[in-house]
Amino acid sequence: MHRECRAKVFAGMKAAGVTSGVALLKGGDPSFRHDTDHEHLFRQESHFFYLFGINEPSLFGLLDFATTLTHVFIPRLDTDYEVWCGKVSPPREYAEKYGVDCVHFVDELAYVVAATSGGRQIVEIDAHSLLKDVSGLVTNKSILYNVLVSSRTIKTPLELSLLRHVNALASEAHKHVMQKIKPGMYEFQLESLFLAHISYEGGCRYSAYTCICGCGPNGAVLHYGHAGAPNSALIQEGDMCLLDMGAEYHCYASDITCSYPATGRFTPAQRGIYNTVLSALVSVREAIKQGVEWVDMHLLAERRIIEGLVAENIILARGKTVDELMDLELGPLFFPHGLGHLMGMDTHDVGGYPSHRSRHTRPGLSSLRMNRPLEAGMVLTNEPGCYFIEALLRPAFEDPVKGPHLNRELIEKEYMKFGGVRLEEDLIVTVEGCENMTDVPRTVEEVEAWMALGRN
Amino acid sequence: MHRECRAKVFAGMKAAGVTSGVALLKGGDPSFRHDTDHEHLFRQESHFFYLFGINEPSLFGLLDFATTLTHVFIPRLDTDYEVWCGKVSPPREYAEKYGVDCVHFVDELAYVVAATSGGRQIVEIDAHSLLKDVSGLVTNKSILYNVLVSSRTIKTPLELSLLRHVNALASEAHKHVMQKIKPGMYEFQLESLFLAHISYEGGCRYSAYTCICGCGPNGAVLHYGHAGAPNSALIQEGDMCLLDMGAEYHCYASDITCSYPATGRFTPAQRGIYNTVLSALVSVREAIKQGVEWVDMHLLAERRIIEGLVAENIILARGKTVDELMDLELGPLFFPHGLGHLMGMDTHDVGGYPSHRSRHTRPGLSSLRMNRPLEAGMVLTNEPGCYFIEALLRPAFEDPVKGPHLNRELIEKEYMKFGGVRLEEDLIVTVEGCENMTDVPRTVEEVEAWMALGRN
Repeated sequence: MHRECRAKVFAGMKAAGVTSGVALLKGGDPSFRHDTDHEHLFRQESHFFYLFGINEPSLFGLLDFATTLTHVFIPRLDTDYEVWCGKVSPPREYAEKYGVDCVHFVDELAYVVAATSGGRQIVEIDAHSLLKDVSGLVTNKSILYNVLVSSRTIKTPLELSLLRHVNALASEAHKHVMQKIKPGMYEFQLESLFLAHISYEGGCRYSAYTCICGCGPNGAVLHYGHAGAPNSALIQEGDMCLLDMGAEYHCYASDITCSYPATGRFTPAQRGIYNTVLSALVSVREAIKQGVEWVDMHLLAERRIIEGLVAENIILARGKTVDELMDLELGPLFFPHGLGHLMGMDTHDVGGYPSHRSRHTRPGLSSLRMNRPLEAGMVLTNEPGCYFIEALLRPAFEDPVKGPHLNRELIEKEYMKFGGVRLEEDLIVTVEGCENMTDVPRTVEEVEAWMALGRN
Repeated sequence: MHRECRAKVFAGMKAAGVTSGVALLKGGDPSFRHDTDHEHLFRQESHFFYLFGINEPSLFGLLDFATTLTHVFIPRLDTDYEVWCGKVSPPREYAEKYGVDCVHFVDELAYVVAATSGGRQIVEIDAHSLLKDVSGLVTNKSILYNVLVSSRTIKTPLELSLLRHVNALASEAHKHVMQKIKPGMYEFQLESLFLAHISYEGGCRYSAYTCICGCGPNGAVLHYGHAGAPNSALIQEGDMCLLDMGAEYHCYASDITCSYPATGRFTPAQRGIYNTVLSALVSVREAIKQGVEWVDMHLLAERRIIEGLVAENIILARGKTVDELMDLELGPLFFPHGLGHLMGMDTHDVGGYPSHRSRHTRPGLSSLRMNRPLEAGMVLTNEPGCYFIEALLRPAFEDPVKGPHLNRELIEKEYMKFGGVRLEEDLIVTVEGCENMTDVPRTVEEVEAWMALGRN
């Protein structure tokens, strides 16, 4: 798979006119907790892993554009390392295991760079201290960066297989949690069940991001679950629960959100908001195909959410059309984040903003992590949501434009502690449509039936 | 608890002659995976947490030695933060929740420092950019650092309660894994079971360190489990398994190692090595009390291991006494790491080397993380081990001094793929002895009985 990725990058560089010189990339270094010897579990830097596929610290990699040969540089480790950290593989074993052409020691780096680089050099990193004996280096970071980003934005078939695998794994883990949840548990126990499932069943030592397990009002906190809000609440009988959790395998991510009532049975209010978001989810999924503008997809989702909230009597149309209500920026009040983002080795993957595109300033659109037309082979999240966020609603009630269109009495009485609903799936864009990699119960009926199974 | 810790530090500073000025401490900042927006789950810097007990990023804390008042500075967060990360607590709520005297915003820092600091200032961190309007600051980092380290080295009764709690939790999790293991599982599944137990049952979102799950030969890799050796082996029928795993709760660690056969039944060779290490563990535990030198404890463990290996016919005495065999440095061949370390907020806690003590150079002793006499109230690990490490044994076979005392034929035939045994428990030093916080099956009979229960 990584050989294929390298081939794409070599081809991209050739297309950019680069047929000589080298690119030198530095892998990640070990990291520690503050000033202690507590070493974090290492995870390779994504560009480096994409090209070389090795999840070990303190490596260098080199692409030789004249010959399209690939070199990797490993630390020269001693007996002491072997005693503490295990058998040191000789360069030959690295070359075989990872399918790269040549493996050297890091202390041979300057020599190899001097020997391989022609008149033109592209040195990706600040390796001057290692290369002080190599004269005449000309560096240009941007060519390689742009080629790498373009290459990573469109996934290869093997990358798609891997993404399907980690999505299936995370889907199963979500379904597992869905059957175990009950009022009286703590939110962190949902996180624990998810992480246990992906690690035990799938060997995932990393999650794709910190689990968001927001139950009841906490569901309205978009990035709940961080250290200051550590999934620590007790789950209550009437809670709507929003669980945004993803697995990472071989440095590829999945990013899935399910929302459901703690009891396994929707109340009418929960059903109304849920179906509003589901309608946005399905509409976007059905509209996605190559060539579609992502901003238009966001606006489509916003439209569905406004329609749903009008139907639920939460937004008061007062004679206005949905277009007019959208113009009043009522959508971002309930759906303040972006519809989704590219996904791959990073959960929020590279490539969302090509150099000629910039961010919109309108609320909602300004949160988008992507502004570009879709292309076949892109992988992205589709994640509309609807939330009742006091910090947004209270000022809006007083707003002379928005206020009259909000059913303040109903919201205060029924929804202020509702939290939120987000439904998130991971899609592969195709020429004619998309493929949904996420396989979890989605309709109210499917969710209730699946949760009931866990209660028998 | 943290108020008590602060009181100790105030008293220590007073004893060091500091009765005016302030100490300014910076808490941890958020950290990210390489150049991405993937934010690591935040864990507070230990000194800061010890004093203030707040596990949130980007805080400052101030101790005023003239008044013994404590100030905390929090970021001034906006609506945007509230939407993404949750309700922002006002300063008053922080003060109540964490029992500190005054809470301000970070942008008020310079003003408060100017108002509280007298003629003498102790500024622990490089906060000059924040304090550019405060003139005449005199800084001295070492007084506070030494007082903090001394304070953290001797635990308060409340800290001991917490350490007992997290030890009990990790002991239970180890016992859980011990009953679930069987040949045909992968090592990472043992890690998964442990982490699931501490997080689900105990709310521990952090482990104290990366789990070491070395089965078979991997047990001889002292810090197995890192990204380059990621607990990925399949567990075989004859494997001795070495599991070094600890939980962290409220920023306090536990550090426990159990070793047992994958099948639940010891072979004679496994029993021999196991009892050798157990004898070292028990001898050290029985010898520990206030005033004892830690280096002497290490040598006691080494003595027991040599005695055991002589009894197993692995070390050949050839007429030499145990003392003479120790002088040949045969001990560190099989027991190359230090006997243990101080433990508290950090797994390898501060205070191991007082300023007048330095490291020994002899193998084994040179790996010790502590060289000092023990004091009541210290918490430390007791973790002797015995390993068959090719990288050490092969050169020793050829060594004219060590070689003749090694039963090369037996080792090559029976032990080269054995791996290792480490037994680790966490002790509180008392005036007359010690308290063992770790509660796991330890004798061969206890281990076999407990594992058999899991198989019924």
